[in-house]
Amino acid sequence: MLQIFFAHINKFTEISEEEFSEIIIYFEIRKLGKKEILMEAGSVCNQHFFVLTGCLQMYYANEKGAEQTLQFALENWWLTDNLAFLQQRKTEFCIQAVENSEVLCIDFQKQELLLNNFPKMERYYRNVFEKAAGAAQMRVKYIFDYSKEEMFFTFRDQYPEFIQRVPQYLIASFLGLTPEYLSEIKSKRLS
Amino acid sequence: MLQIFFAHINKFTEISEEEFSEIIIYFEIRKLGKKEILMEAGSVCNQHFFVLTGCLQMYYANEKGAEQTLQFALENWWLTDNLAFLQQRKTEFCIQAVENSEVLCIDFQKQELLLNNFPKMERYYRNVFEKAAGAAQMRVKYIFDYSKEEMFFTFRDQYPEFIQRVPQYLIASFLGLTPEYLSEIKSKRLS
Repeated sequence: MLQIFFAHINKFTEISEEEFSEIIIYFEIRKLGKKEILMEAGSVCNQHFFVLTGCLQMYYANEKGAEQTLQFALENWWLTDNLAFLQQRKTEFCIQAVENSEVLCIDFQKQELLLNNFPKMERYYRNVFEKAAGAAQMRVKYIFDYSKEEMFFTFRDQYPEFIQRVPQYLIASFLGLTPEYLSEIKSKRLS
Repeated sequence: MLQIFFAHINKFTEISEEEFSEIIIYFEIRKLGKKEILMEAGSVCNQHFFVLTGCLQMYYANEKGAEQTLQFALENWWLTDNLAFLQQRKTEFCIQAVENSEVLCIDFQKQELLLNNFPKMERYYRNVFEKAAGAAQMRVKYIFDYSKEEMFFTFRDQYPEFIQRVPQYLIASFLGLTPEYLSEIKSKRLS
């Protein structure tokens, strides 16, 4: 199971199995049931999560009280409220398991220690965040370019597996639609 | 002028003046006139820009042919199409100077070399991208939370200087509004 993390680190920097066995000590493995909460809105964001198996969702309650999903994280993705984590302050977001999941957790102090003791890991995290910043640029572009209807079909075509895995009401919450409206879009396209 | 870059690096990692004098060799300084183009859509994204003075804008032409602004970068901000830069492929975006500006440019190969020769700089870039990823999460939240009208007033309240500096049609293009609609919003609020 940890092999997936070892392989992910080695995509960006070179570490030996021996180094990995020292690095992994900084992390805690957590097994989560479906819908289990990992981070609560209003708490200090002190954890950074790496998905080994399963899927996480980061969301907040918008003004209307509906859940707005900001991000999903599947295997090999990191997830947290990055600004709150960096500044060690309260987050407005929740993180929850979408399905049964196994995640690695590291807290801010341990991550700092890890980076001080294994400077090679700076290269790894730099790449992770560089990709995350790039993905976010593209997400903003998609939000501007596509109507919510087009967004759903583009998303479905690009990530067919994802649409299979994740409940429809969460896809709706990611796209900023009501579940009812998403059903309507889908049935309109089929008819 | 370069002092601003030295100070910015030292916010996140420790480098001496001597090291800085070696690091700066990897960069090229460019002076840009207002509206000068730094990166063209359709070209391979090979440059990463740091703003010393002035302001850059990254945008693309949307389906209607209008300029949609994805990001601005003021002093101390980095800017590029992060995914295209990482993968050394063609970008869909343009980068242009909003006002007379001075920027540091580094190409992909030199940045890799810099990071290999000065591993301390990994820590610097990791922090830069971590903040960028966090800022992008908040941007997506704002896009979902606010109407375009509210977005303008929130933006104006948070960045009053920015609204002074940047022409109104560019603010409109950042918020996804037509300049006419932005004028209307502003006059409505004043009346």
